[in-house]
Amino acid sequence: MKEYRILIDTTDDKGLVYKISKVLYEHNLNIEKNSEFVDEEEKKFFMRTVVTGEFDQEKLIFDMKKITPLNTSIKISHNSKKDIVLLATNESHVLGDLLIRYFDGELNANIKAVISNHDELRDLVEKFDLPFHHINADELSREDHEVQVKEVIDSYCPDLIVLAKYMRILTPSFVVSYPQKVLNIHHSFLPAFIGANPYKQAHHRGVKIIGATAHYVTDDLDEGPIISQDIVRVDHSYSWQEMRRDGRNVEKVVLANALQLLLEDRVFIHGNKTVIL
Amino acid sequence: MKEYRILIDTTDDKGLVYKISKVLYEHNLNIEKNSEFVDEEEKKFFMRTVVTGEFDQEKLIFDMKKITPLNTSIKISHNSKKDIVLLATNESHVLGDLLIRYFDGELNANIKAVISNHDELRDLVEKFDLPFHHINADELSREDHEVQVKEVIDSYCPDLIVLAKYMRILTPSFVVSYPQKVLNIHHSFLPAFIGANPYKQAHHRGVKIIGATAHYVTDDLDEGPIISQDIVRVDHSYSWQEMRRDGRNVEKVVLANALQLLLEDRVFIHGNKTVIL
Amino acid sequence: MKEYRILIDTTDDKGLVYKISKVLYEHNLNIEKNSEFVDEEEKKFFMRTVVTGEFDQEKLIFDMKKITPLNTSIKISHNSKKDIVLLATNESHVLGDLLIRYFDGELNANIKAVISNHDELRDLVEKFDLPFHHINADELSREDHEVQVKEVIDSYCPDLIVLAKYMRILTPSFVVSYPQKVLNIHHSFLPAFIGANPYKQAHHRGVKIIGATAHYVTDDLDEGPIISQDIVRVDHSYSWQEMRRDGRNVEKVVLANALQLLLEDRVFIHGNKTVIL
Amino acid sequence: MKEYRILIDTTDDKGLVYKISKVLYEHNLNIEKNSEFVDEEEKKFFMRTVVTGEFDQEKLIFDMKKITPLNTSIKISHNSKKDIVLLATNESHVLGDLLIRYFDGELNANIKAVISNHDELRDLVEKFDLPFHHINADELSREDHEVQVKEVIDSYCPDLIVLAKYMRILTPSFVVSYPQKVLNIHHSFLPAFIGANPYKQAHHRGVKIIGATAHYVTDDLDEGPIISQDIVRVDHSYSWQEMRRDGRNVEKVVLANALQLLLEDRVFIHGNKTVIL
Repeated sequence: MKEYRILIDTTDDKGLVYKISKVLYEHNLNIEKNSEFVDEEEKKFFMRTVVTGEFDQEKLIFDMKKITPLNTSIKISHNSKKDIVLLATNESHVLGDLLIRYFDGELNANIKAVISNHDELRDLVEKFDLPFHHINADELSREDHEVQVKEVIDSYCPDLIVLAKYMRILTPSFVVSYPQKVLNIHHSFLPAFIGANPYKQAHHRGVKIIGATAHYVTDDLDEGPIISQDIVRVDHSYSWQEMRRDGRNVEKVVLANALQLLLEDRVFIHGNKTVIL
Repeated sequence: MKEYRILIDTTDDKGLVYKISKVLYEHNLNIEKNSEFVDEEEKKFFMRTVVTGEFDQEKLIFDMKKITPLNTSIKISHNSKKDIVLLATNESHVLGDLLIRYFDGELNANIKAVISNHDELRDLVEKFDLPFHHINADELSREDHEVQVKEVIDSYCPDLIVLAKYMRILTPSFVVSYPQKVLNIHHSFLPAFIGANPYKQAHHRGVKIIGATAHYVTDDLDEGPIISQDIVRVDHSYSWQEMRRDGRNVEKVVLANALQLLLEDRVFIHGNKTVIL
Repeated sequence: MKEYRILIDTTDDKGLVYKISKVLYEHNLNIEKNSEFVDEEEKKFFMRTVVTGEFDQEKLIFDMKKITPLNTSIKISHNSKKDIVLLATNESHVLGDLLIRYFDGELNANIKAVISNHDELRDLVEKFDLPFHHINADELSREDHEVQVKEVIDSYCPDLIVLAKYMRILTPSFVVSYPQKVLNIHHSFLPAFIGANPYKQAHHRGVKIIGATAHYVTDDLDEGPIISQDIVRVDHSYSWQEMRRDGRNVEKVVLANALQLLLEDRVFIHGNKTVIL
Repeated sequence: MKEYRILIDTTDDKGLVYKISKVLYEHNLNIEKNSEFVDEEEKKFFMRTVVTGEFDQEKLIFDMKKITPLNTSIKISHNSKKDIVLLATNESHVLGDLLIRYFDGELNANIKAVISNHDELRDLVEKFDLPFHHINADELSREDHEVQVKEVIDSYCPDLIVLAKYMRILTPSFVVSYPQKVLNIHHSFLPAFIGANPYKQAHHRGVKIIGATAHYVTDDLDEGPIISQDIVRVDHSYSWQEMRRDGRNVEKVVLANALQLLLEDRVFIHGNKTVIL
């Protein structure tokens, strides 16, 4: 059955729940799920409502605008499949996990294509009858490489871009062209071990727990809003390669969980944080 | 600042959020926090709203009754301290943990007294200048012992009774006199290892994870609605005593978390489950 | 580099570490890793030693037998790939996860074939160029079906048989033909929710944590020695299908971890428990 | 029964297990527990053996020295109670937790005294009939204050000094006077959120998991060898004070676990890491 998700993000104000639910009621919508969060410090209001029923979206937005503060953002989406493009480099564990979930029908999404700066993953991707684009970065400036990558991405007009262990730094100009659309998995428990080789860093520091972090990509490397994190225990007997082996299980699950949240339109960006309703 | 918590538990119905928030709005209340849960299968609606402002409670309930289904339960509480009575036997770890939290001012509660069927814990309790009642169970029938226990409990009119490792089975008649008021900590990951010596049972079964469960007490031993659970990892090298040692850390934290939820009026009982908003 | 794993399982006795390490020393072996466990209650001794160097296996076992109690079991294996056969029914998440790990080269094993009582998974398995055997169970007695399954299994002489969500009960006669060779993943936190539909059972009970358990298969359904367990948190808002969705991530990782331990010859069976060195 | 713990820390060398266990055998000792770890990269060997029986310690060490590399460190301790001194500032949760564990007889230790730079905790400490020393730091240089603290510490000749939320930075000269004897609990998941107000930092960063870390104190603030870590999940709805509230449960348990390991002589320092056998 067709569900609509209405996401409202605004300044906190008296009676917002009443006023908003009144509009939904007047539009004769059934509320299946409703969640709000108020950041009292920053006076921000977030509301996610799942509704069923037929309605005029423009009229609804018009009526909402009338009763909410000026800066209100209103997004309406529905539970149809989102189009996603995956970027990877040469590690297959995260990409493979997504492909299996896709094959399972676990993802409410269409994987339109996989793009990589290497060719190793072609065989894996083509097993699942998906387009694979190898865009070689050798002898190209970062900018020139990204031009080609963007061209391919844009040809698919994806709703989301998922970096499935894409081991290249993105330029601000790339990031800015896909606002709130790029999801990354970092193989550490951010903000610990930012940057290269987090498992080697973790091994060197002698931590007893390692983890992974899924986050939106912003200009600041590894500094974007965190969506999901998880951990696994290690001990002195682990080599950094064994940390990586166990850490990869966490990477897979954390990215899959974060993607699931995005596909359900459950994530608001709030400054450099996320609100998940 | 004085906050009120309004807990509404009813049959799901169209427009409930709108109608309820309308009443709150008309009573000129500020909604600080608001959460709902709809059990779509069982068509049940749960809503917890934290409000500030002055209002006429009876009028509010009267107005709410008008716009909600007949079977609606409406509870209004505020964030003042609740009175609790603790029952224990002779293990001091959970009781001691609660006493320290109480001393810390971490619990929004008044511990009115501790009752035990043994005398060992008197010294600990009296360190914290709290009344300790030793009610010996020897040569008494379960019923006769409970009569004495109830007498002491009732003399304090507690809002909650917390079984801090009270190792006696309660009769249905005891349980029924304190509906939704008795909180217990069971030293296993329910429903695993119901009954006596769960750590010995866990050791015997060779599990790799043990846990603890905080639940409401009902007639069915270890079958009441679960409020909170947590776990800790063990391995083949653990004796059952070592499992108990590590498990006790979980018992303490799980009970404290569950008590915290009850003190914040965040727990609804829904059949044999809990809804925590 | 070729490593040998020497697993000794015997009655505890004075000087065993000295006597055993003396034999290893006299055989001029380098000890890379060494772990022991003594079950003091049951007076059992377990030792796993990883060695490098060339040696005469029969001579080593002969010398070991001389200095250890009569009932001593000595196993010597090396770090070459083990042959495994997978049994599945129609769920693809666990099987797919193993196939991706296999494709990654993460498993030190050869997957020789996949056997299923349904045909749905053929497409997935054949993507990875592995033999798929559909052995229909309709209109067959359990025994007759198992005869055909055993025939196929035995044609591959596997070191291990992995039940990757094989949803059929095995007869004692099947189990007894593959002693300590059959690994199963159960989709609950055993011993909780034994039997069918554990996620439905968990949802019905209202637990706050669900899990999965990898164990050796014995005659007793869901009662075999536990190798690995893990959990994930849920709450009242989860339908049983959502519990299953998140639980599947745990199933995958728990089975992969247990398989990893078996491939490294790190698991001893000790009564109905495991000792993992 | 009296147990001895023999900790050997040396350069890896062929036959060490054999040679060491031979000496133990010749001294007629029963090995109750035995664990080794070899750091293959750094060619280091660590062995912890728990033995029972009567023996001549000097002779044992003499014999061990003969068969081990020159740089070998050999420590022999037994399972009698260790003397510890606690330092705190004004938070009572960690200190109170240790006092309750002490009262429970859970710690195999004598708490000789508590030292604080404030007087608030006197009442709590004196409930447990322990000496409390208030050493005011106002108008004193860090050095001068530490002189007084050291004087009190040294009057108790403790085996261990436990910083139970002691919120002052220690000078190198203080740290160097108690090598491998000072245990600290840091209220973050190190290396994340080093320094002041980690809960505020965590809240600001929007992490989904917070934690605590118990570590040896070295000159480098928050950089000492990590002994134990644990975590707890949070979400967008947590204020930093709520993160602190839940984080405190982790602080208590992590510190207690680390202390337990130290009291059992299970921790080796290996560069800036720990090896726990």
